[in-house]
Amino acid sequence: MSDQNPVFIPGPTNIPEVIRKACDIPTMDHRSAAFAPLYDRARSGVAKVLNLGEGGEVVLFPATGTGGWEAAVTNTLSPGDRVLAARHGMFSQKWIDLCQRHGLDVQVIEAPWGAGVPVEAFAQALAADTGHAIKAVLVTHNETATGVTSDVGAVRAALDAAGHPALLMVDGVSSIASIPFRMSEWGVDVAVAGSQKGFMLPPGLAIVGLSAKALATIQNAGLARCFFDIRDMLSGIYPYTPPVALINGLAASTDLLLGEGMPAVAARHHRIAEGVRRAVAAWGLAPCAQSPDLYSDTVTAIVVPEGVDGNALVAHAARAYGVAFGAGLGAVAGKVFRIGHLGMMTDVMALAGLATAEMAMADIGIEIVPGSGVAAAQGWYRESRAG
Amino acid sequence: MSDQNPVFIPGPTNIPEVIRKACDIPTMDHRSAAFAPLYDRARSGVAKVLNLGEGGEVVLFPATGTGGWEAAVTNTLSPGDRVLAARHGMFSQKWIDLCQRHGLDVQVIEAPWGAGVPVEAFAQALAADTGHAIKAVLVTHNETATGVTSDVGAVRAALDAAGHPALLMVDGVSSIASIPFRMSEWGVDVAVAGSQKGFMLPPGLAIVGLSAKALATIQNAGLARCFFDIRDMLSGIYPYTPPVALINGLAASTDLLLGEGMPAVAARHHRIAEGVRRAVAAWGLAPCAQSPDLYSDTVTAIVVPEGVDGNALVAHAARAYGVAFGAGLGAVAGKVFRIGHLGMMTDVMALAGLATAEMAMADIGIEIVPGSGVAAAQGWYRESRAG
Amino acid sequence: MSDQNPVFIPGPTNIPEVIRKACDIPTMDHRSAAFAPLYDRARSGVAKVLNLGEGGEVVLFPATGTGGWEAAVTNTLSPGDRVLAARHGMFSQKWIDLCQRHGLDVQVIEAPWGAGVPVEAFAQALAADTGHAIKAVLVTHNETATGVTSDVGAVRAALDAAGHPALLMVDGVSSIASIPFRMSEWGVDVAVAGSQKGFMLPPGLAIVGLSAKALATIQNAGLARCFFDIRDMLSGIYPYTPPVALINGLAASTDLLLGEGMPAVAARHHRIAEGVRRAVAAWGLAPCAQSPDLYSDTVTAIVVPEGVDGNALVAHAARAYGVAFGAGLGAVAGKVFRIGHLGMMTDVMALAGLATAEMAMADIGIEIVPGSGVAAAQGWYRESRAG
Amino acid sequence: MSDQNPVFIPGPTNIPEVIRKACDIPTMDHRSAAFAPLYDRARSGVAKVLNLGEGGEVVLFPATGTGGWEAAVTNTLSPGDRVLAARHGMFSQKWIDLCQRHGLDVQVIEAPWGAGVPVEAFAQALAADTGHAIKAVLVTHNETATGVTSDVGAVRAALDAAGHPALLMVDGVSSIASIPFRMSEWGVDVAVAGSQKGFMLPPGLAIVGLSAKALATIQNAGLARCFFDIRDMLSGIYPYTPPVALINGLAASTDLLLGEGMPAVAARHHRIAEGVRRAVAAWGLAPCAQSPDLYSDTVTAIVVPEGVDGNALVAHAARAYGVAFGAGLGAVAGKVFRIGHLGMMTDVMALAGLATAEMAMADIGIEIVPGSGVAAAQGWYRESRAG
Repeated sequence: MSDQNPVFIPGPTNIPEVIRKACDIPTMDHRSAAFAPLYDRARSGVAKVLNLGEGGEVVLFPATGTGGWEAAVTNTLSPGDRVLAARHGMFSQKWIDLCQRHGLDVQVIEAPWGAGVPVEAFAQALAADTGHAIKAVLVTHNETATGVTSDVGAVRAALDAAGHPALLMVDGVSSIASIPFRMSEWGVDVAVAGSQKGFMLPPGLAIVGLSAKALATIQNAGLARCFFDIRDMLSGIYPYTPPVALINGLAASTDLLLGEGMPAVAARHHRIAEGVRRAVAAWGLAPCAQSPDLYSDTVTAIVVPEGVDGNALVAHAARAYGVAFGAGLGAVAGKVFRIGHLGMMTDVMALAGLATAEMAMADIGIEIVPGSGVAAAQGWYRESRAG
Repeated sequence: MSDQNPVFIPGPTNIPEVIRKACDIPTMDHRSAAFAPLYDRARSGVAKVLNLGEGGEVVLFPATGTGGWEAAVTNTLSPGDRVLAARHGMFSQKWIDLCQRHGLDVQVIEAPWGAGVPVEAFAQALAADTGHAIKAVLVTHNETATGVTSDVGAVRAALDAAGHPALLMVDGVSSIASIPFRMSEWGVDVAVAGSQKGFMLPPGLAIVGLSAKALATIQNAGLARCFFDIRDMLSGIYPYTPPVALINGLAASTDLLLGEGMPAVAARHHRIAEGVRRAVAAWGLAPCAQSPDLYSDTVTAIVVPEGVDGNALVAHAARAYGVAFGAGLGAVAGKVFRIGHLGMMTDVMALAGLATAEMAMADIGIEIVPGSGVAAAQGWYRESRAG
Repeated sequence: MSDQNPVFIPGPTNIPEVIRKACDIPTMDHRSAAFAPLYDRARSGVAKVLNLGEGGEVVLFPATGTGGWEAAVTNTLSPGDRVLAARHGMFSQKWIDLCQRHGLDVQVIEAPWGAGVPVEAFAQALAADTGHAIKAVLVTHNETATGVTSDVGAVRAALDAAGHPALLMVDGVSSIASIPFRMSEWGVDVAVAGSQKGFMLPPGLAIVGLSAKALATIQNAGLARCFFDIRDMLSGIYPYTPPVALINGLAASTDLLLGEGMPAVAARHHRIAEGVRRAVAAWGLAPCAQSPDLYSDTVTAIVVPEGVDGNALVAHAARAYGVAFGAGLGAVAGKVFRIGHLGMMTDVMALAGLATAEMAMADIGIEIVPGSGVAAAQGWYRESRAG
Repeated sequence: MSDQNPVFIPGPTNIPEVIRKACDIPTMDHRSAAFAPLYDRARSGVAKVLNLGEGGEVVLFPATGTGGWEAAVTNTLSPGDRVLAARHGMFSQKWIDLCQRHGLDVQVIEAPWGAGVPVEAFAQALAADTGHAIKAVLVTHNETATGVTSDVGAVRAALDAAGHPALLMVDGVSSIASIPFRMSEWGVDVAVAGSQKGFMLPPGLAIVGLSAKALATIQNAGLARCFFDIRDMLSGIYPYTPPVALINGLAASTDLLLGEGMPAVAARHHRIAEGVRRAVAAWGLAPCAQSPDLYSDTVTAIVVPEGVDGNALVAHAARAYGVAFGAGLGAVAGKVFRIGHLGMMTDVMALAGLATAEMAMADIGIEIVPGSGVAAAQGWYRESRAG
């Protein structure tokens, strides 16, 4: 009966009833008059969630965030183009790998797992690139593997300071629709999101926002693409069968998010996340993120004591209590476990997750005071609740 | 977003996915060949859950437990017949009231709210009734208002000791399908349940089991009835439009319960309930039930300190945290609040409820140590979990 | 895969997606603040659908139309009271039987199956009843067994002409929410409906509207009742567990109906029904209803030729084509088959039913020209469609 | 209320209840132990539907058939490789275009729209290619635009006759799971399907079957790919978030199909299709497919009379009757309209579509005898039904 428990993975997230229902619809002819208004509503909703800005476009692929990364680079770059990226977690690493497989020349800046995007190193690289060989800068807004949120605005400032024309591409898969995302203000050219995180939908949609500047590059981009060709997507006719039910769900999701208001959504995520962090502190443990300014409001990676296998903890929690936490990935595999706290998550759900984590930690031999994290989070939730 | 939290009322209970889906079906013609096997499957499933015994029948009314009470008495008794009943909680009181409105002569034995059925007083009344004026004895197996489970077998023993032929009628609305119910062994003649408790369905079904002895009285019962007439129900044709979707859900529910095994279901309820009781003790509070042998494994009514309004606590938890607990009813209104822990309830859900109760109690001024109840329950759930 | 075909029974009817979804909700605490607004919305929606009038009330029982009949009489009448009713079909017969089982003195006027309510005979009986022994007049607005709609307004006129104070009670189970129902204008005192017909919900709700005059009788009505006691229903607290999901569905249903507008709903039903009748004529067959003024816009009972068993036809259509039509009941069993065309029914669905009926008739040996009924209905649907 | 009507487009198709429910599930952690068995069940089900053969693999992408085409070529071919393909409809054209965008050298053989794959011309081209420059032969098994099913086995014979080692790639998007597909027997190396046709699921899955021979080429294929990289898919860990709900639906779909048996599925499709074709003949119209051996059992493209716009007909049917037919595409835009009859389609649904098509044709000025097509189909459905 464990499908009755919430999940605490950093995506796919728990799906609100109203969104589940919006995703469960009878077959609709996507060439009928009913589809276009729905599609427009979903895309304009996303544009507002992104703070997209004038002249931008939103495209929706039946894919995942990885497909969104591929669409981002193949539609704007040509073989051999240089891109600047940092490797500081599993998802930044995966995007680098994707670029390399598509024949791009990735200038990789290594940073510790747990660090944010190395803005200073980026600034230096950009300043040094006087020939503007760098065509794009990639930023992983929220490293899901380490629970680190980076400063996109600072990367923009570095680009501006260097007077550098490179496109700014942001992986917002685990940030967008949860924490502040100011696409226009930050001068983001390509933003990539997925359906199954802050949008609280099942997986299956790559959501890509493009600035006017990014759109201007599409006709001349030389990388091969067809399924992910944004030219077709913007032709006026959806180039293949669209995932109508997910698009209906996305329209419902953006209605829900915008009805709450994006600042309120962000405040809600911060509040839930802070409770989790207080629990972590009460347990005597620490986040993987190197400093509080990097703490993610969507996922917390918690460093387990030496000698404990974080992934065993996650497996135990699933088996013993029917609860899904996030395992450690890549360089931090076994060293952390992760609590996803994005999307639809009430105080009550968060406390359920913390109480379960406590049991699992105690079972696996981590010395914590049972109830201590719950109590710390309760205190915070009580004092910070509205009204 | 509080529809995402579980409920902790003693019914309607949380509905498992598989049962929700079974209740959500396209229109089925109840006069078609498809209905009869479904109906039979649901009824035979209930018979097994009840341990109905030879010669009994299960009938399903589109109604609630109250309708089941009405069906029980109107199909077996005649105007002016005497019935013996105890008043020791809201639901025993309501059944008495129903009998009186139907012109029965109820011999009421008063008992404290928090006590069980007064078996000794019943025994005396039965022994004294040498003329067998008492035609039926009513027992509220689980008093939902006080969290008290009574000893049905002891009432049967009292009847047998007195050599008394009265029918034994049991309100099992909040016990059946959760805790042991041995209809045949206990010689229960009419058992009444509802869909929305241990069967984990939406409300809308009165589920009535009748022994062969009860069935023998039906033709001669003089009370007026039509909607609840069991003669029509047993005629071979459902006498009006049956609630097909709920019946489909009931078939799924009994499959689920019987697949787990009724002893395992009871053990699961006991285990979850014990965690709640350990939390209550850790808070320094006590159940309304007068002694441990009366503690209900489906609902715990918790006495709040003097000066605190239990119903205000319940209202606060709903408003502040989106969680439903049970209010105090009748004689214990304001004096208790109730945690329902029947039906589909995981350790994780129970802990979520306890953590929420702690916040609400602290908010409302009950002095408890935050996390203490959670920790006590965690300890129990850890030590008692399987494997 | 026959659950993919629409049903053509006169209830339960096909359920629109939006209503199915409204009926499939997580558990809601009916004592929470969320329930009351929902309940009020459903009841006030029904009041508008009924054209209830000032001072009336709507009550909702977890039951069926039969329960509604029982509530109607037990809340307003006393043992031995006389009621006037006509027997001209299965459902009028069943209501008479119910009254008799509850100890009422039913003055039955026999009329042919296929006839409407015998208004003239009613007028004579009322005029003759100078002592006002008749306390209530029962009218079956739409005889589902014969496809006959009677003239409620004419019965009101007869009451008025006789200056008779009897209550006017109307079974609107298969009329309300589909064809015009003017409760206030017709001076109907008790109107009974069910969820599974024009309201397009699953079965499980008895919907009862009461005039101020009917409400005034409730305190003094002497018939025994408890589950169906309207005094409890109007006490301010729902007396047992309400069927929350169905009430949520009813709110959605009345929103849908009132959004379309009740005149448009009636026009839609008439239009669909007329197509069915044209098909019947094209087949060379005739409705059971004696004259066109009696033709029901919700169900058509079609007389099959001598030597053909209408019920065998229905069974064959179910088995061979997975389609449910209505069998003949009671006095017309075997002599008719019925096509229900109420609730959610498009031209396309109606044509599917007619095409299937043609196949089944041909299979069973009724000589019809295949396609003839479909063609006749097509012609009508084409000429009468909007825009 | 038109979402209550079935659709008659050649995909997405009508979704059976059981599959809709399987696609509507709570969030499942795809890294949990629950996912792998589900994923395996879906893939092994597809393998059986495809008659995949020894050593093959099935991969599932969150994409559409177009993504499947892309996966097929980018995982097996290198830049500049030659592929042989015929252009005889919209979908064969689109696959050619995809290949060209990915830098392949497509040897295009033109054929009329309405013709099948030109096997003779393929045979000649393969025989002439003594240097084996052709690395792959592409076949559109069922041209959805024209309703033409081609002879894949004959293409295999041509390859064998020429002793040609080229891979045989088949677009089975609108054939697989509906009509016979013998992957192993025909020596198909890559088969591409989508979720939203014969599998009766919502869109969102590209389903790709690969032979052992195709798998052997993957490590050396030089085309760039990452999202569609089958190496990652076969690595043992799903490379990004899988569409769990659709995979659950696919498992349910293959259970359903295999439970019926693929020969029975094909027979059912043939039977339904034949009814549609008899209706077309009765209307005095003809399929776009050039000869009966080419008639598709999944979709029929019907040539409209000169002077009539087939697409206007489709738009009218949607607007006036709420029914979706398929418009003409590309070279046959306006010249045909299409009736999709694949997936879940009963006799009753097919007749509903035919009856609607008749109304729409009459409205738009096509001279047909109303009811004639329905009657023709009725006759066939009656004579050909089982039992």
